[in-house]
Amino acid sequence: METIVVELGERSYPIHIGGGLLAKTELYGIAAKQILIVTNEVVAPLYLERVQAALHGREVATVVLPDGERHKTLATFTAVIDRLIDGRFHRDCCLVALGGGVIGDLAGYVAASYQRGVDFVQVPTTLLAQVDSSVGGKTAVNHPRAKNMIGAFHQPIAVLADTDTLKSLPARELAAGLAEIIKYGVIVDAPFFDWLEAHIDDLRRLDPAALTYAIRRSCEIKAAIVAEDEREQGRRALLNLGHTFGHALEAIGHYERWLHGEAVGIGIALAARTSMALGWLAARDCERIASLLALAGLPSTAPGVDAHELLTHMRGDKKADREGLKLILIRAIGESVVTRSPPEDTLRAVLAERLQ
Amino acid sequence: METIVVELGERSYPIHIGGGLLAKTELYGIAAKQILIVTNEVVAPLYLERVQAALHGREVATVVLPDGERHKTLATFTAVIDRLIDGRFHRDCCLVALGGGVIGDLAGYVAASYQRGVDFVQVPTTLLAQVDSSVGGKTAVNHPRAKNMIGAFHQPIAVLADTDTLKSLPARELAAGLAEIIKYGVIVDAPFFDWLEAHIDDLRRLDPAALTYAIRRSCEIKAAIVAEDEREQGRRALLNLGHTFGHALEAIGHYERWLHGEAVGIGIALAARTSMALGWLAARDCERIASLLALAGLPSTAPGVDAHELLTHMRGDKKADREGLKLILIRAIGESVVTRSPPEDTLRAVLAERLQ
Repeated sequence: METIVVELGERSYPIHIGGGLLAKTELYGIAAKQILIVTNEVVAPLYLERVQAALHGREVATVVLPDGERHKTLATFTAVIDRLIDGRFHRDCCLVALGGGVIGDLAGYVAASYQRGVDFVQVPTTLLAQVDSSVGGKTAVNHPRAKNMIGAFHQPIAVLADTDTLKSLPARELAAGLAEIIKYGVIVDAPFFDWLEAHIDDLRRLDPAALTYAIRRSCEIKAAIVAEDEREQGRRALLNLGHTFGHALEAIGHYERWLHGEAVGIGIALAARTSMALGWLAARDCERIASLLALAGLPSTAPGVDAHELLTHMRGDKKADREGLKLILIRAIGESVVTRSPPEDTLRAVLAERLQ
Repeated sequence: METIVVELGERSYPIHIGGGLLAKTELYGIAAKQILIVTNEVVAPLYLERVQAALHGREVATVVLPDGERHKTLATFTAVIDRLIDGRFHRDCCLVALGGGVIGDLAGYVAASYQRGVDFVQVPTTLLAQVDSSVGGKTAVNHPRAKNMIGAFHQPIAVLADTDTLKSLPARELAAGLAEIIKYGVIVDAPFFDWLEAHIDDLRRLDPAALTYAIRRSCEIKAAIVAEDEREQGRRALLNLGHTFGHALEAIGHYERWLHGEAVGIGIALAARTSMALGWLAARDCERIASLLALAGLPSTAPGVDAHELLTHMRGDKKADREGLKLILIRAIGESVVTRSPPEDTLRAVLAERLQ
C-alpha cells in the first residue's frame, strides 16, 4: 500500500492506494458513530459486504442507488438527503461513497450540503474515479441541460483506492480511466508519459505494481495542482485538457454513447490535433499522444458528430465564461497551456477533418 | 453610512449600513457583467427598480419568487438554477439577493451551488436579515421535515443594509428583528443590552441613528464571532441562543404561527427561565431579558404548545448531535455558555410552566 497526502491545510487528507484496502478499518479514518454508505446496484453485490464488515460496530446504514450517470441528479440527491433525515443523522455523521465517479460526485455533494457539510470518505471502485474524481474535492450533480452544474467544493476525510476493485471493471471502463491517466502525462509530466508508453499493456492486464504506480503518480500530479489552486482560479484549469470537447461530446451522445473517460480521450486527441494545426505541437508528439490513447483501447474520434453542434455545446460549457471559449492546448508532451478563444477557423477545420 | 468588514481572509467582505444605499452602484462591488437579482413578489414592487437602476449597464435579469418561508425549498432552488442555465449564466456571474432571510438563504445557496460557487451580494430588506442572515455565510433551504437542513457556507462579496427599506416593514417583522438584536446583548455584550433598554422605543419608531447603531453593533458582534469560528465548531454556537427552542416552535407552528424572530424571542425567554431554574441566572436578569423582549413587541410564551412535543422536536434539531441536546444558556446578561444535555427534569418543568 502507498499513501499520499493532499495538502490543503486543515482540510488535508490521505489517499491510500493498493490491494485489499476495503477490509482495513483504520484506513477509513472515521470517528463518527453514524455512517451512511452510498453505493449502487452494480457495486453493492461486489463490495458492500467488505465495507460493512470493516465498519462493523458503528451504526451503519446503506442506500443503494440505480447505476448510471443519468441518476446523478437533484432528484437522487434529494432521495439521499431524505434517507439522512429519516435516519436522524446528526451533523457529526459520515458518508462513505462506494462506487465510481457518479457515486462519489453525488454522495460528495450530499455530504457538502447536509446540515451545511458533514464528513465523507471516498472509496472509488473505478480507475477513473481513483485517479480523477476522488482527488480535488469537486462534487456535483448534473442539470438536465448540462453536466456538473450544481455542486460544491468539499474535501473527503480519506480516499481508499483499492486496486482489487478494478478486477471487476469492464474493459471499456478501464480504458476510460487510462484516458485520465494519460492526460496527466500530457499536461505536465513527460517522463510519466514515457513510462505509460512502456507500461500500457501492464496496466491493461491489471498488473498490481503498475496500477499502483500509475494511480499514485496521477493522484500526486492532481493533488499538487489542486493544493496550489483549490478553487480553479488558474493552473487547475490544465486538468480540463480534453474536457471541453469531452463534455460537449457527452451531451451530444446523451451521456450514453461515450463514457466520460472515452469522451475525454477523444477530447485529448482533438486538443492535440488543434495544437498541431496551430503550429504549437510537433507532429511527432501529436502522433505519440494519439497512439497511446489507441493502445489504451480508447476511441480516437467521434464519427458522425456535427462540428457546428459540437462547437455550440462547447461554448455552453461551464469552463467558458464571458471572455469566450477557454481551451487547454498542448505545447509539447508534458507542457500545456490555458488558451483563450482559439482561432475559430482552425478549430472548425480540425473538427471537420476529425469528426468524419 | 457606516461600513464594517467581516474578516475572513480572502473571503472578507464589507457590510454597509445606512440610508439610501440601494441607489449607490459602487457599494455593490460587482465586477460581473451578468447579474441575476433574486427577490420576491412583496419586495419587488418596493425596491427592485432602485436596484436595477443602480446596476444599469450590465446584463441584469430578475427572478421574482413567491413570498414566504414555505418556498425556501429545493424546488425553488431548482427553479432559480434553471433560470441561470436558461440565461446561460457563466461562472463569473453574480447573484443579488434582494429581500429578507428567506431570499438571502435561498439565493445564497444557489450562489454556493451554481457551477460550484459564484459571487453574490446580500441586500437584506428586513431587520432580521440585516442583523442575522446577512452575516456569517450560512445559506440553506428547508427540508419538509426540518429547517435549513440542506445548505452551504458561502460568503457574499458585499452586504448592503439599507435602513430605508425598514420603513415598509410590518411591525411584527420589525419586532422579530429586534429579537436577534437583543440576543447579541444577552450572549456577549452587557453594555449593548443596557443601550437597548434605553433605546428600544427609538428603534421601534425607526430612528435612523438608533437603527444604524443597533445594526452595526449586532453585525460587529456576529462578525467577530464568525471570524473566530467560521464553521461553527465552538464559540459560534452562542449565536444559537433561543434557536433550538425557536426552531422546534417554528416546526410545531408549521412555519406559519410564528415568524423566525418571534420564535427565537420566545426561545430566548425560555433559555433565560431554564438558566434561572438551574440557579445560573439571577432572577433580576431573567426579568430584564423578559421585559426587553416584551418592550420590543415580542410574544413571551407559546400558549398551547405541548412540552413533550417541543422537546422531541428539539432533539431532532441539527444543533443536536450524538452527545445529546446542546443548548445555549445564560450565566448573566452578556455571558452565555454552550451546555450539553441540560437536566431533562428542569427543562420539562420550565416548559410545563411557561407553555401554558
